[in-house]
Amino acid sequence: MAATKYLLDESRMPTHWYNIMADLPVPPPPPLHPGTLQPVGPDDLAPLFPMALIAQEVATEREIEIPEPVREVFRLWRPSPLVRAHRLEKALGTPARIYYKYEGVSPAGSHKPNTAVPQAWYNAQAGIRKITTETGAGQWGSSLAFAGALFGLEITVFQVRISYDQKPYRRALMETYGATCHPSPSNLTNSGRAILAKDPNHPGSLGIAISEAVEVAATHDDTKYALGSVLNHVLMHQTIIGQEAMLQLEMAGDDPDVVVGCTGGGSNFAGIAFPFIGQQLRGKGKTKQRRIVAVEPAACPSLTRGTYAYDFGDTAHLTPLTKMHTLGSTFTPPGFHAGGLRYHGMAPLVSHLKQLGLIEATAYHQNDCFAAGVLFARAEGIVPAPEANHAVKGAIVEALRCKEQGRSEVILLNLCGHGHFDMTAYSNYAAGKLVDQAYDEGELAMALSGLPSVPEPA
Amino acid sequence: MAATKYLLDESRMPTHWYNIMADLPVPPPPPLHPGTLQPVGPDDLAPLFPMALIAQEVATEREIEIPEPVREVFRLWRPSPLVRAHRLEKALGTPARIYYKYEGVSPAGSHKPNTAVPQAWYNAQAGIRKITTETGAGQWGSSLAFAGALFGLEITVFQVRISYDQKPYRRALMETYGATCHPSPSNLTNSGRAILAKDPNHPGSLGIAISEAVEVAATHDDTKYALGSVLNHVLMHQTIIGQEAMLQLEMAGDDPDVVVGCTGGGSNFAGIAFPFIGQQLRGKGKTKQRRIVAVEPAACPSLTRGTYAYDFGDTAHLTPLTKMHTLGSTFTPPGFHAGGLRYHGMAPLVSHLKQLGLIEATAYHQNDCFAAGVLFARAEGIVPAPEANHAVKGAIVEALRCKEQGRSEVILLNLCGHGHFDMTAYSNYAAGKLVDQAYDEGELAMALSGLPSVPEPA
Repeated sequence: MAATKYLLDESRMPTHWYNIMADLPVPPPPPLHPGTLQPVGPDDLAPLFPMALIAQEVATEREIEIPEPVREVFRLWRPSPLVRAHRLEKALGTPARIYYKYEGVSPAGSHKPNTAVPQAWYNAQAGIRKITTETGAGQWGSSLAFAGALFGLEITVFQVRISYDQKPYRRALMETYGATCHPSPSNLTNSGRAILAKDPNHPGSLGIAISEAVEVAATHDDTKYALGSVLNHVLMHQTIIGQEAMLQLEMAGDDPDVVVGCTGGGSNFAGIAFPFIGQQLRGKGKTKQRRIVAVEPAACPSLTRGTYAYDFGDTAHLTPLTKMHTLGSTFTPPGFHAGGLRYHGMAPLVSHLKQLGLIEATAYHQNDCFAAGVLFARAEGIVPAPEANHAVKGAIVEALRCKEQGRSEVILLNLCGHGHFDMTAYSNYAAGKLVDQAYDEGELAMALSGLPSVPEPA
Repeated sequence: MAATKYLLDESRMPTHWYNIMADLPVPPPPPLHPGTLQPVGPDDLAPLFPMALIAQEVATEREIEIPEPVREVFRLWRPSPLVRAHRLEKALGTPARIYYKYEGVSPAGSHKPNTAVPQAWYNAQAGIRKITTETGAGQWGSSLAFAGALFGLEITVFQVRISYDQKPYRRALMETYGATCHPSPSNLTNSGRAILAKDPNHPGSLGIAISEAVEVAATHDDTKYALGSVLNHVLMHQTIIGQEAMLQLEMAGDDPDVVVGCTGGGSNFAGIAFPFIGQQLRGKGKTKQRRIVAVEPAACPSLTRGTYAYDFGDTAHLTPLTKMHTLGSTFTPPGFHAGGLRYHGMAPLVSHLKQLGLIEATAYHQNDCFAAGVLFARAEGIVPAPEANHAVKGAIVEALRCKEQGRSEVILLNLCGHGHFDMTAYSNYAAGKLVDQAYDEGELAMALSGLPSVPEPA
């Protein structure tokens, strides 16, 4: 019997993040100031982020060192395990070899602490005492709360009100770590008050919560803002996942044919995929050509149905314009349980790779993804987060293709988090109460027609 | 900086359970048939358990092999990590070195799968198709549900009705693994119907749920019953915890002065402690003498306030009589959040060791334990289960004693599970709403006065 888990010794944990900017054949289009339509500079971002993170956002070196105090925290749960899914393979009857990289071992239960910890540390180093952020279901908010506790930072989280009311457990986790959590829209900001004046019972949205968090950071000298996905430096912080997986697959004597991750803002996908893509780019066709598959929800399909265009990152239009696959910043996806994938846009770097033909994208419906998650749980024991179910579904589709074709390919998937705080969704799935709501085609067309007009560069 | 985690290679995972019966200076008093007051024989237990487990219950060999198919499942999460709690030490300012063995990495989030998996496997080997059990909050029920999914067994869980209604997430976990969960009392058994006839809104109790599960197993040939603690074979299955910890502490170059675990039925405590106690017993004073500390809730203090006497294991008096520290089988502890420690008795083997002076016991109040848990979460990231908070509290008390005495002792604690499904309790604690209910002294006296009369052996 081959081993099940591949555990890296702490001494082999990567010491540097991998920056894919160094290996891209074409640089991605720059973010633009929405007023001037000129590229955004460090000064534009200074009110929100410490300089070290702004430098990482525009860095082009291939490797950036992970500070030792950050690595010290990572050792609480990293290197995370790579597991050969023997039992899932058997359940599927596939000749494929399936491996999952399991990020649910982190204290907050997902990959998000991989960036929350360095973001908190760089802020603390810059003398910042307070960080604001937004959160939907709470994966990101609880990760930043954890990181804040470690470095003595006050964390204020604006949580979308409907989640704040409906999911008290994630909030309790944030509070246990010592963070303060406000339902958004709140009376604490101008943007919140403006919304509440119109509708005192407004359920909130991620766009509004971003506006509130950004407003607080922009108007307080001792306070910065943190984002859990989308930005270049956030994606780079996640590359420790793929770098570890590469070493662990070496231990297993295997090399992936297909790498699968789920995509919302793009950070966990980038984390598993970028190191493999970079290896191929540097190999210039001499290394094994792998398929890199992004899996997104059919109800919010930015990569498969969105337009590649400049757009705002938030509904309130406070952010720079970035070129990305977008459903339009006014698009409201229907409700579904993978809250971490409910975003109208896609990370500019992931979008750029899609545009260059370096990655594939596919979309699945919620019920199909939960069916995959339940199959995985019964075979491997771990109940995946609803977001991670998309990657599981993608991997199962590849494994069944291998079965049909009689091919023993190696499939690597990123199991980005556990579903311990999402059991209501599993309960509803089991009871047949989950609905695969489709987005409104008319609304999508409307949102896309409202994309800002940005002239092509000369 | 010393390493944080000590990970054993899978190849070093223990291949045998450790049976403390082989090393005891005096054998424990035998369980008795309540009618004849004669020692219970294998035939008495045959309707409820497969013969392999009955044999383990009375075995006296020092080592019993863990079947390979069970070890194969264990490799999904075992060996579990041993972690040096550097950050907790720093937060306490103690010269003590604190290590925690973390069992929350199992799929069900606690140590319970260590016995659920072998119990399910031995039943499957004996041709059993169905297992019944009871559960309170659901740690044990979800672990057996997970194990049942792996070996194709139908698992039926009778869950105390008030928990069934109040804690839907653990139930959703059981159902995701494919188990059937009934609120108890139910209309499915005579014992359940009798209770409901008197009170259709009865909130249920562990005693009633045991009666229902035992009744179903005793009246169906293809169905057996499984228990998650208390019995000798269950405690033995947990010794893999302490055996691994021993190897991991060797890697760290340390040897514990104090071993701390929480006690309800006694299984996780036995798991961490028995291998160390056995080593001392075999060393006959020539090995390091360690203190072994059991920590129990002040509201249900069987080891510190109970009587060492023969008593029933359940309130309905269906079980054999076992000699143990008991608060009386009719004693109802006040409500508190560490549901896994809310049991009137203590495992006979743990009680026997207490009687022999080989272990110490201490009791703490709920709010003190939650304060310890929050401190731990902010330092180490992991939010412990309310049960595990008792072990954390016990370890912190020892670490602060070391600080006062200027001693750099080595403290090992068993962090038996995470609190992801217990965040309501943390929420209430943060809001100052947790009450340290004391048990009723009059009720305790009454329960103890009702202990069955068993003549001392000649």
